[in-house]
Amino acid sequence: MRPSGRAPDQLRDVTLEIGVSRYAEGSCLARFGQTHVLCTASVEQGVPGWLKGQGRGWVTGEYGMLPRATHTRGRREAAQGKQSGRTQEIQRLIGRSLRSVVDLKILGDRTITLDCDVIQADGGTRTAAITGAWVALARACKYLVEEKVIKETPVTGQVAAISCGVFDGTPILDIDYAEDSSAEVDANFILAGDGRMIELQATGEKRPFSDEEFAELMRLAKLGCGQLFDKQRAAVG
Amino acid sequence: MRPSGRAPDQLRDVTLEIGVSRYAEGSCLARFGQTHVLCTASVEQGVPGWLKGQGRGWVTGEYGMLPRATHTRGRREAAQGKQSGRTQEIQRLIGRSLRSVVDLKILGDRTITLDCDVIQADGGTRTAAITGAWVALARACKYLVEEKVIKETPVTGQVAAISCGVFDGTPILDIDYAEDSSAEVDANFILAGDGRMIELQATGEKRPFSDEEFAELMRLAKLGCGQLFDKQRAAVG
Amino acid sequence: MRPSGRAPDQLRDVTLEIGVSRYAEGSCLARFGQTHVLCTASVEQGVPGWLKGQGRGWVTGEYGMLPRATHTRGRREAAQGKQSGRTQEIQRLIGRSLRSVVDLKILGDRTITLDCDVIQADGGTRTAAITGAWVALARACKYLVEEKVIKETPVTGQVAAISCGVFDGTPILDIDYAEDSSAEVDANFILAGDGRMIELQATGEKRPFSDEEFAELMRLAKLGCGQLFDKQRAAVG
Amino acid sequence: MRPSGRAPDQLRDVTLEIGVSRYAEGSCLARFGQTHVLCTASVEQGVPGWLKGQGRGWVTGEYGMLPRATHTRGRREAAQGKQSGRTQEIQRLIGRSLRSVVDLKILGDRTITLDCDVIQADGGTRTAAITGAWVALARACKYLVEEKVIKETPVTGQVAAISCGVFDGTPILDIDYAEDSSAEVDANFILAGDGRMIELQATGEKRPFSDEEFAELMRLAKLGCGQLFDKQRAAVG
Amino acid sequence: MRPSGRAPDQLRDVTLEIGVSRYAEGSCLARFGQTHVLCTASVEQGVPGWLKGQGRGWVTGEYGMLPRATHTRGRREAAQGKQSGRTQEIQRLIGRSLRSVVDLKILGDRTITLDCDVIQADGGTRTAAITGAWVALARACKYLVEEKVIKETPVTGQVAAISCGVFDGTPILDIDYAEDSSAEVDANFILAGDGRMIELQATGEKRPFSDEEFAELMRLAKLGCGQLFDKQRAAVG
Amino acid sequence: MRPSGRAPDQLRDVTLEIGVSRYAEGSCLARFGQTHVLCTASVEQGVPGWLKGQGRGWVTGEYGMLPRATHTRGRREAAQGKQSGRTQEIQRLIGRSLRSVVDLKILGDRTITLDCDVIQADGGTRTAAITGAWVALARACKYLVEEKVIKETPVTGQVAAISCGVFDGTPILDIDYAEDSSAEVDANFILAGDGRMIELQATGEKRPFSDEEFAELMRLAKLGCGQLFDKQRAAVG
Repeated sequence: MRPSGRAPDQLRDVTLEIGVSRYAEGSCLARFGQTHVLCTASVEQGVPGWLKGQGRGWVTGEYGMLPRATHTRGRREAAQGKQSGRTQEIQRLIGRSLRSVVDLKILGDRTITLDCDVIQADGGTRTAAITGAWVALARACKYLVEEKVIKETPVTGQVAAISCGVFDGTPILDIDYAEDSSAEVDANFILAGDGRMIELQATGEKRPFSDEEFAELMRLAKLGCGQLFDKQRAAVG
Repeated sequence: MRPSGRAPDQLRDVTLEIGVSRYAEGSCLARFGQTHVLCTASVEQGVPGWLKGQGRGWVTGEYGMLPRATHTRGRREAAQGKQSGRTQEIQRLIGRSLRSVVDLKILGDRTITLDCDVIQADGGTRTAAITGAWVALARACKYLVEEKVIKETPVTGQVAAISCGVFDGTPILDIDYAEDSSAEVDANFILAGDGRMIELQATGEKRPFSDEEFAELMRLAKLGCGQLFDKQRAAVG
Repeated sequence: MRPSGRAPDQLRDVTLEIGVSRYAEGSCLARFGQTHVLCTASVEQGVPGWLKGQGRGWVTGEYGMLPRATHTRGRREAAQGKQSGRTQEIQRLIGRSLRSVVDLKILGDRTITLDCDVIQADGGTRTAAITGAWVALARACKYLVEEKVIKETPVTGQVAAISCGVFDGTPILDIDYAEDSSAEVDANFILAGDGRMIELQATGEKRPFSDEEFAELMRLAKLGCGQLFDKQRAAVG
Repeated sequence: MRPSGRAPDQLRDVTLEIGVSRYAEGSCLARFGQTHVLCTASVEQGVPGWLKGQGRGWVTGEYGMLPRATHTRGRREAAQGKQSGRTQEIQRLIGRSLRSVVDLKILGDRTITLDCDVIQADGGTRTAAITGAWVALARACKYLVEEKVIKETPVTGQVAAISCGVFDGTPILDIDYAEDSSAEVDANFILAGDGRMIELQATGEKRPFSDEEFAELMRLAKLGCGQLFDKQRAAVG
Repeated sequence: MRPSGRAPDQLRDVTLEIGVSRYAEGSCLARFGQTHVLCTASVEQGVPGWLKGQGRGWVTGEYGMLPRATHTRGRREAAQGKQSGRTQEIQRLIGRSLRSVVDLKILGDRTITLDCDVIQADGGTRTAAITGAWVALARACKYLVEEKVIKETPVTGQVAAISCGVFDGTPILDIDYAEDSSAEVDANFILAGDGRMIELQATGEKRPFSDEEFAELMRLAKLGCGQLFDKQRAAVG
Repeated sequence: MRPSGRAPDQLRDVTLEIGVSRYAEGSCLARFGQTHVLCTASVEQGVPGWLKGQGRGWVTGEYGMLPRATHTRGRREAAQGKQSGRTQEIQRLIGRSLRSVVDLKILGDRTITLDCDVIQADGGTRTAAITGAWVALARACKYLVEEKVIKETPVTGQVAAISCGVFDGTPILDIDYAEDSSAEVDANFILAGDGRMIELQATGEKRPFSDEEFAELMRLAKLGCGQLFDKQRAAVG
């Protein structure tokens, strides 16, 4: 039995609320149960220096967590003067995942920054961030098309992400903080709209894991992302 | 006529919503029109090193702004590796103001950190932060009393804050971003519950200002803070 | 009775000595009793990047304190790798105050940096810095006119600053360190040559303060700045 | 055909040379073709502060690259004042992987730091680092047992790692820099001695990847790690 | 002919003025012509962590330069967030030199920090700093003896320093900025009171130098330091 | 008797091995007994900003030490976020020394960076670094000539360096770590191919030193560098 009382293949209540920022070109508040991530897509003219003159745009991600998003207060990264290794790892992942479904030539001489700020954390913040960031990105691109800034959307497909784990010997979908703390295996799946994989990470937290376990985690991830894809399409409209 | 259409002595719609954080001992989402600041009060055992062994607690503030809280995206301070002078100035102000109404001996060997994070900005973020932080602080102290951690609340009075300005020659209350941008004089007032002043700052942005102008700004601030004190008391309950 | 033995409305011995730097375009050693601040005005070609191409110059301030300027040695900010919040707050104040009396169009494509370094501190360093920096600035601009670099001085008026406080219930002028340590209220006034205010900051250090107290502090500040304006004019010549 | 001329399931020439550091308790120079990583295991008394008094030791990893380890010179991280996100991601991975096969209670109040410094890079530096670090770790623990510092080795199993990829449609083993640059899919596998997985990461660099492709990459990884396990055992002796 | 018009073996006008700081236990304003360095000796209880419990004190140096101490304004190190390599090199030299004449056991559980701040620079700042720091140190120790904090002075001998150079083929003493800029060889000598050497550094700026040249520079340095030793003794009293 | 058993004027076994880097334009592994320094010369197009448009190239040095190059593990500078004063001092020395034998006009619009990374340390790392860096530099320039990038080598002479010291009253050549730890005097000599001096540094670690002692150290240094010059020429070919 899961601490959350959910069935092994059951997602938390997920909502993807758009239009939550007055200023951002696209925005989405992704709620996976008690995990709340505010995702904004900001469109700016120009690209980073190393990309200049290539006729291509850029998509990048940044990630942060409010100090009291968690059970006990964490230190503010801005006050510490640097981002943790974990933060940097996550923001690299967000950028890489979203770029995989953007045609940067169509985007042109523009940079879209996806800011994913965790307002409240209960496990699975990076996957909620990616799922919500895709909505913010798609909304921002839709806005650019509507405003006739670009002729067609540069978004070539969907991206959603979910974390799974092995808890008390049983593979389960969408693990929350309580489950994550005692999970034996922990995995993050980032999937494309056609069910293929964009990125996956799996870690044996307490012990190595077998092919069979991993295959089951992958099956659960596909199941969960299928539901997330539906919610994303409904949110983008 | 103000860009906002408000009367010179009219506040924006202000709401002080409590219980917005699942984990913090006290929390308040302060909305002053389109300015939204999430304030949490985190209670931790112990005090900073320089205060050890004096039988007194500590209250401090931190301030941050989400990168896309503003019209155009700002750079993330954690990524830049330091907090701006403006951020540091504001968080010093928050801590100083709130400490002025806390009996640190009653608080005992505890630190309360007030995190004020601007989710959306439309002018007056520092005064909204202080007004909301007081609610979060009072709620956290109420919780400590209810949990019998301390016998009585260390909060000795109320603190609320509001910004005023001279716009097109007219002193006005609670200036928003559009008004702030072209204000001639800009002032922040932090008032105690009895109407006296805890801190004030006034700047002649475009020209020096006279005693008469300043007196009118102070009158407006007292008027506005009177209304904020009522809302704070209602929120704390 | 004040610890310093001065009358409530009495300044310390103030001297504004010019020509104290062999290299700077303008310089002034401002002595307010035992508080000694070395102010230099450095003129450099060009303006910060964000101001380029607008046909306007820039005036900015920097502030520092020698480690043993104070009773007990403070840590060297350069060795710590960052400037304190207090330092940044003060240098923003210096820059803002001085810019309020400079016509940046007349200054043209130049930056004037006002370095205010506290050689010895006995309270009121920020107000001594501003008062001395104005002299250094005016001297540098006079030099630019004499050298025919610019046709007329961009300095449009005077700026002087003084700190006041409420000590043992009595409002007093120009508080020194001993008085500041036990002052109930602490205020800094930055005034224009015509007696109007450019910036003011007041803090209830031990308790809130009333309108009447603040009005008396303001009266003292005007009195004190009047004397400082005379000394500034004498120094600039 | 691979640029390297190797068969799809062929490792580069791999050597694991021990005793390469005069001072370290354990050391290994891992050569995977032209990728050379110097791994040292340093044993120090005590553990990080957050682990004190729990009767457990700690194993951690650090990673660096000499500026000219690569085709074009990279900037020295020490000179830049921070480690890149990539470096931090890799050193977290090294520490996590090695800890998974260490009984920290047996290690006792000691920290073993695995420094993995890339002397020359030709792709696959993180997997070579982990494979070599295990040898350095096992050698250091053997030394501790021989010196009667601890009674038995805390190393509970083997860890080896290899990168695979899909190149021109074909899954291949142990990709080098030339292959990596144009690989469609890139994956790192960290395996336990019994063939189960400790950690895996897979990224669709140019396109998403299917279950079948991933299964083939996993098969290659098991094949390659089998050979690495033999070499590790021979090196440790 | 030297740009300064001095004879090859002629020092600049040197004054060592004591009592220039109201708070420091010892202080000296060292003027070598237009080079002015303010040296303070601060005595603090306790020693750095790595020296605890050894019954020995510590002497260390810090060095800084006001931004406009030089012909053109330099950037403030505190604002840049780090000390330059040059600054660190000089402060290590100051500490090392002064420690060579202090009996750290007699000093006991105390740290003396020598802050050398360059108010105005015209070449030879590091040697002026060392010469003045010795006076500040000796004065501080004298004060400790007079206050009966320690029974005898821990200062075991004198230290003075001077820079020499080869200018237009001629070895000269005490080079100033104009001479330094075009010197072929540049050397700093730190001498003990008995004429032996504590530290020396020599650099062929434009070409290598011969034994004979170096011998002549050393002769000049001894001559100059002899005069500095007299001035130091007079200053300490 | 030296701890190393060497005669007072005897170098350690010195080898200068070239071609140790697959990518660098020039490389040399300098081994002075158990001190091993990997030196690479990297040629890059362009020069630092402050040198642009002057028709001259630039030569600079960087220095690092692997954390476990020493008896006990040192902290990684990249992880600490800054280079120590010692590191900066050494890399300034490397750059200065090598530039003294390069005609920067012949080098043209190019920068050569000499990375000197200490793989294993047993005293004398800075002098081994300079001696090896010269070989890497000369090899890189030879390569540029062979590739017809430049017409003639910009290297105008040889540079070698050695450390000497006074140990137990006897001046000795090429001190290792054990000797260095208890040396009374410590000196580094950087010599030009004609026997003249490019830079020298001498420090009385335990006591001041006399002219006679210094003269003997210099004699030993010339002897040692003579042998190093032979080895360098053999290595460059």
